[in-house]
Formats: sequence, C-alpha cells, structure tokens
Amino acid sequence: LYLDQADQSQRQQWLSELTADYTTLQQEGLNLDLTRGKPSSEQLALSDALDGLLQGNFIASDGTDTRNYGGIDGLPEGKQLGADILGVDADSVLVGGNASLTLMFHAVMVGLQYGFDGDGNAWNQQGNTKFLCPVPGYDRHFTVCEKFGIEMVTVPMTATGPDMDAVENAVQQDPNIKGIWCVPKYSNPIGVTYSDDTVARMAKLANLAGAGFRIFWDNAYAVHDLVSQPKPLADIAALCRLYNTEDSVIQFASTSKITHAGAGVSFLSASSKNLQAIKSFLSAVTIGPDKVNQLRHRRLLPDRAAVEQHMQKHAAIIKPRFDVVLQCLEEAFGDSDLGRWERPEGGYFISFDARPGCAKEIIRLAAEAGVKLTPAGATFPYRNDPEDKNIRIAPTVPSIEQLEKAMEVFVICVKLASVKQAM
Amino acid sequence: LYLDQADQSQRQQWLSELTADYTTLQQEGLNLDLTRGKPSSEQLALSDALDGLLQGNFIASDGTDTRNYGGIDGLPEGKQLGADILGVDADSVLVGGNASLTLMFHAVMVGLQYGFDGDGNAWNQQGNTKFLCPVPGYDRHFTVCEKFGIEMVTVPMTATGPDMDAVENAVQQDPNIKGIWCVPKYSNPIGVTYSDDTVARMAKLANLAGAGFRIFWDNAYAVHDLVSQPKPLADIAALCRLYNTEDSVIQFASTSKITHAGAGVSFLSASSKNLQAIKSFLSAVTIGPDKVNQLRHRRLLPDRAAVEQHMQKHAAIIKPRFDVVLQCLEEAFGDSDLGRWERPEGGYFISFDARPGCAKEIIRLAAEAGVKLTPAGATFPYRNDPEDKNIRIAPTVPSIEQLEKAMEVFVICVKLASVKQAM
Repeated sequence: LYLDQADQSQRQQWLSELTADYTTLQQEGLNLDLTRGKPSSEQLALSDALDGLLQGNFIASDGTDTRNYGGIDGLPEGKQLGADILGVDADSVLVGGNASLTLMFHAVMVGLQYGFDGDGNAWNQQGNTKFLCPVPGYDRHFTVCEKFGIEMVTVPMTATGPDMDAVENAVQQDPNIKGIWCVPKYSNPIGVTYSDDTVARMAKLANLAGAGFRIFWDNAYAVHDLVSQPKPLADIAALCRLYNTEDSVIQFASTSKITHAGAGVSFLSASSKNLQAIKSFLSAVTIGPDKVNQLRHRRLLPDRAAVEQHMQKHAAIIKPRFDVVLQCLEEAFGDSDLGRWERPEGGYFISFDARPGCAKEIIRLAAEAGVKLTPAGATFPYRNDPEDKNIRIAPTVPSIEQLEKAMEVFVICVKLASVKQAM
Repeated sequence: LYLDQADQSQRQQWLSELTADYTTLQQEGLNLDLTRGKPSSEQLALSDALDGLLQGNFIASDGTDTRNYGGIDGLPEGKQLGADILGVDADSVLVGGNASLTLMFHAVMVGLQYGFDGDGNAWNQQGNTKFLCPVPGYDRHFTVCEKFGIEMVTVPMTATGPDMDAVENAVQQDPNIKGIWCVPKYSNPIGVTYSDDTVARMAKLANLAGAGFRIFWDNAYAVHDLVSQPKPLADIAALCRLYNTEDSVIQFASTSKITHAGAGVSFLSASSKNLQAIKSFLSAVTIGPDKVNQLRHRRLLPDRAAVEQHMQKHAAIIKPRFDVVLQCLEEAFGDSDLGRWERPEGGYFISFDARPGCAKEIIRLAAEAGVKLTPAGATFPYRNDPEDKNIRIAPTVPSIEQLEKAMEVFVICVKLASVKQAM
C-alpha cells in the first residue's frame, strides 16, 4: 500500500475494503491490551524463589545484620549486583529501594535544589532550568521534570540514539540546559541502542554545556537482550574518565524487569562527588534502603553469569512476542508508506511511527475494536506529540494468540486511519 | 546528693571520692554503647519467619499480583495492617516503603512546595515557613526541616506532651508556622504519652493557626507498650472529625520496630484531601511501594491481636533493660538534685535531664570511660541544647550485664560532672 502513489479511486476502493474489514473485527467483541510495559506472570514466576531464599541467614558478607537499621548506600552484595548489571565498579554504586524512578527523582532534586557541586551551585540559583528530552521517550522521565517545573526541550531520536548535532547545539546555545534524559540501551520506546559515536559524544557533552550539567543515563534495559549477540553499548563511565567528565553522568538501573517488578532493588552509579551529594541528601530522606531484599536478590543472582542466564529465560518468553509484532508490521507495512519502526534487539517496547496526524485516530479506532493502545502523545513531554504519529506497543503481557489478534486489528486500524486521512 | 545544699568542703570531699571512683572505672577498659535506638538481634529474630512466609502465593485478597508493578497507595492487606497499628480506618491509610521518614519527608515537601490545598497554596508561596519542634525531640524530624530550610521554633515538652499554652500562642501569633512535629506516644526521647487534654487541644489547633497548618503525628511507638495497662493515647483523627479539622493531621507509623527494622513497611494516614495531594505527588516519585513485602507482613501479623501478641514478645525482651536503667537512676538520683527523668511505659528511650550545663561534660567523661552516649544536643534543632542538659539513653541493644555496667559509669559521670561544675 503506497498511499502517496495511489489515485483517488484506488483510495476509495481501499477505504471500502478496510471499512468492511474493520466492521467485521469490531463485531468480535475483543478485549485486548497492548499498553502494559510490564512482565507477564510467567516472567515473574522465574524469580519466585526470592521468598524463602535466605533460610534464616540475614547476615551480609561484611557482617551487617540486614534486618536492622543502618547504611545509606547499600550492602556490598547490593552494590556488586548493581555493578554486574550496569557494568561499572561496585564502589560507584548506591543501592536504592524498589524503584529507580525514586532515585532519579531525588537525583534531579539534588541538582535542582541543592547542587551536586555544593552550596550556591543548585540549578535553580542559575535561572530557568531546562532538560533535553529525546523524543519519543519515557513518560515518567517527563513527569519528573514537570513536577519540578523544569522546562523540557525536545530533540529527535534516530536509529543511533538522540540526534547529537541537535543535542550539542542546544547545550552550547543555552547554559540553562542542565540535564538530558537517556535510555541508552533498547531506548524506551523505540528500542535502539546508542551507537559508539553517540555515547562518545555524550561523554564529551559536559565540555560544551553550562555548569552543573548532568546526563541521566537510565540503563533500564542493561541486560534485557532478546538476541544472543546484541549490539553492545559503549561504556560511558570509561569514556567520561577519558574526557575528564566523570561528574557529568549518573547511571540508573533496577531489577524491576529482572526479578519481581514491584519488589526489586534499584541502583545508581556515579562519581564520588555525585555520590557524596546524593548520600548527604538521602540521609535526610530515609534511614536507608531495604537490605534484606538486597541480600535476597544477590543470593538469587550471585554473579554476572547468573544474571545473564536468568535474562535468557526472560528472552525465551518475550522474544516470540516481539517476533509476532515485528512480523505483522513487516508483512503489513514493509512495502508501504504507512509507517516506520525499529527492530529492537531487547527491551520492552516496539514503537510505530504512523503517517503524521494519524496516531490519535489509529488509537481511537483500535479502542473501538477492543484493542487498548497507549494514549497518543504519552511518549512526549506534556503528552504532546506535535506530529501525532508515534504509537508505543508493549508486547510482553498478552499471549501469542492475543498478540496476533491485536496486531491484526492494529494493522487494519493503521491502514484505515491512513487512507481516511489521505482522502 | 543535694549539691545545692552542700557546702564547699562537702563538695570537695565528693569530688575526691568521685574522681577516685571514676579513675577506677576508667581502668576497666570498657567498650559499651547506649546510643543505638534500634532493636536487638533477639528482637529481630521474632520476625525471621517473614522470609519464606508467602510459600509461592503472591496474590493479594483483591487479586493483585504483588510481584508486578502497580498501585500507588498499597494493598488492602498493607492498609489494614497500618490501620490496626494506628487505630484508624484502612481507607485513610497509604502504605510506603521501608522508611516512614521518607513518607514524612515527602509529606513536608508536598506542603512546602506544592500545597495540600492545590496550586497557589504551597507554604513557600506564603512567606518564611516555620515548624514548631517540641524539645527534646527526634533528630531526624529536625533534619527534614533543616534540609528544606524550614525555620524551627522550639516549645518545651512536659509530662503531658508539648506545652500547649506555648504551642497555641505560637501558632496564633505567627501564621507562618505551618507544622508541628509530634511523637504522641512514648515521645522520642522523653517517653511520655500525650494526655487527653493535649490531644484535644492539638485537634483544635488548626482553628488557631495559619492556612495550611499540618500536625505531623509520628506515632512511631503506637503499639510499643512495655506494661500491660499503659496510659492510652486519645484518638486524634476522631477528635479532628469532631472539631472539623480532619485535614490538619497526618499520621505516620511503620513496622520498623515491630518486625525487621531495615526491611519493614511504613504507613501514612490522612484525610482524603491530604491523601489525594500526597498520591498525586508520589505518582511522580515512584511506580509504587513494595507490595510483596506488604503481603508478607500481613501474613505475619494478620490482625490487631497478632500485633499485640507480637509486641508482648518484644516487651519481654526490652522491659528488663528499661528496668535496669530506671532502677539505677532511681537509686542514684531519686533523692538528689542532680537530674530528672520520666518513667516510660513503652518506646525506645529514657531521657535524662542533668543539671544545666552538664550534659556535654557527662558525655565526654562517659566516653573516656568507654561508654558511648548520644552526642549532646542531638535531641534539639540544629543540635543545640541551649541548657546543655538533655541526654538520651537507648537501652535496647546492650545486654542486661552491659547495661548495669554502663549505668554504673553513667551515674558516676553525672555526679562527677555535677560536682565539678558546682565547685
């Protein structure tokens, strides 16, 4: 289907056929959901051994009684788990609670209201704080900015990561840009891994940017590979050491999509200067993270190899679901001008760019045929997709059969919305 | 020993005797610690069944899969546990992570930066925010204020709670006083429970105070009784309903000193208006609290009776330790002008008021004899005890024998410091 090359009578014919197909599907009374970027029950069950794993031994390797108060940055076991996941030194890791989002929120708060560089260096003492937001991106990153009144400046995502020309220009021209949100591996939602060149340019960014600039490197899918030889992600911490920009990057990860999504452990990795500022802040916020849960997680995942083996079990469950979606898209739109998408080698999402102006209508049509899609605009700051084209597909929760049916509906809705718009 | 009635030669004699006793104790090379307000290993072990209790059943009563994402305010099980502990309706409860301090920090942040009453009503839009701090009090409450730049105004504690005349005068005279920290039961550190009159006057306080005033009711020791018929704490939520001040109180509790201190569940109870503001804020901060841990805790403590039985086991361990301290104090100072203290019926601390100007010296002397005491001033805002007299004693961690020895040292140090100062 090449809409741009079709004449009006062809389009009219397609419209009739698609309307008929759509009406037929509507009558099936479906109730399917492609919105939920979370693990399925089958995936969660991979980690059910967590409960009861300690067998009465609550003492950590350094002698800490994990059941009691104490320690703001986590057990050696927790730090090493974070180090294994992020590929960083354990010394650089701070362990949080069950949500890396909380670590991100608090890290932004430190930069904005207190300053990583100490008194007088808070961003909010330097004017109107802005963050760069590669789009499409992760809605909860945008919500953090919104909550703090941080102005969001968008830059486009490409197949190699954020458009680095746009990123570099922006930080050079505006010293009030104090941060950028990055999901460097299997980026939420488009699923690309930043290229080596992109990571290297990120590592040098602080040399172009205003004072106190920080990269929020949310490596949420650090070990979430679906293929055996995935494209590797360059080591930004090592590159930052090379370029003397160690303080400019704060990395985040969690076990949320490794073990139990709601009951895991989160990690932050940063330079000693950043760690000091964050720990000082956190000591006013908490008596310390849940150490029993850290010990439990380390016993389940005692080293990097164990993490990788565990993730292969996830891949065995998830990969067929990604394949269904990607195959449906390829068959329907591979030879068309109706949409574009990446082919993620990991992560949790597939992102579909429809023809501009069609996303809302596709989502509406799908909903009326019983297939729930993430609301249009969700992947943009202020929930505003200026071109109204991006749709995020989350394939992990539905069954293969449900996915096949949902994608059948999706394909019809994309075609129908596109043809209607082109009439 | 009545110093004020002794003449100089008596004092000189005491000084010689006490110096000799002190020197003897110093030579014992002791290494004891009365600073740690945390449970002993024996207490922690009461809850070791938590790990493994779920036996593969992670589904909550409402069908929620606790292993997955979702839910900002907690499971029905978590809310009911909080309700049982605080004596409130489960509907009024929000469940947090392992630290009630985090809930308090975030609740203060909502009031200060966002406003419980919505846009335009944040405290920081109304001038220089101040909080009333009954002293002596809990250092971490003061740290929250310090972190937010909230000015702390002290009011004295009495045997019936904060001096309510002082509290009422202060809020009437200064509408910028937007909050007060309260530990209403076995108040940290002096160990008194607020009288019915105090609680009733607290419940009416919002009618005298400026807009947006909130009481931070940290009921940390709600079920931590050491005696079988403790003095009851009046129900502030019920009184607030009576006086139409429901929005003026936010209650907090946790299982930290019930189960595992570092790995428990925290609770907040408030009016629906406050809950709405707090939930809206938290949805930017977290994907939700650890629900597996909530379920685990409810299985261990399925109802109020189970909580009470569990706390009796704690009391059986702790009570003899409190008795040692109180008996030593009574024997040494019951008939003297060297100090005053309350006799707590629960909680974690005994607070000793030495003669003004003696606390630092007592603590220094004790340290040099191998007994670590909480630093002077720790129970006051900005770590400044203006009269230099309050010393917090934490008797739960040491053994009975250790406590007896430590109190022997303490008594000598109090006497020695007092006599020296009176010379």
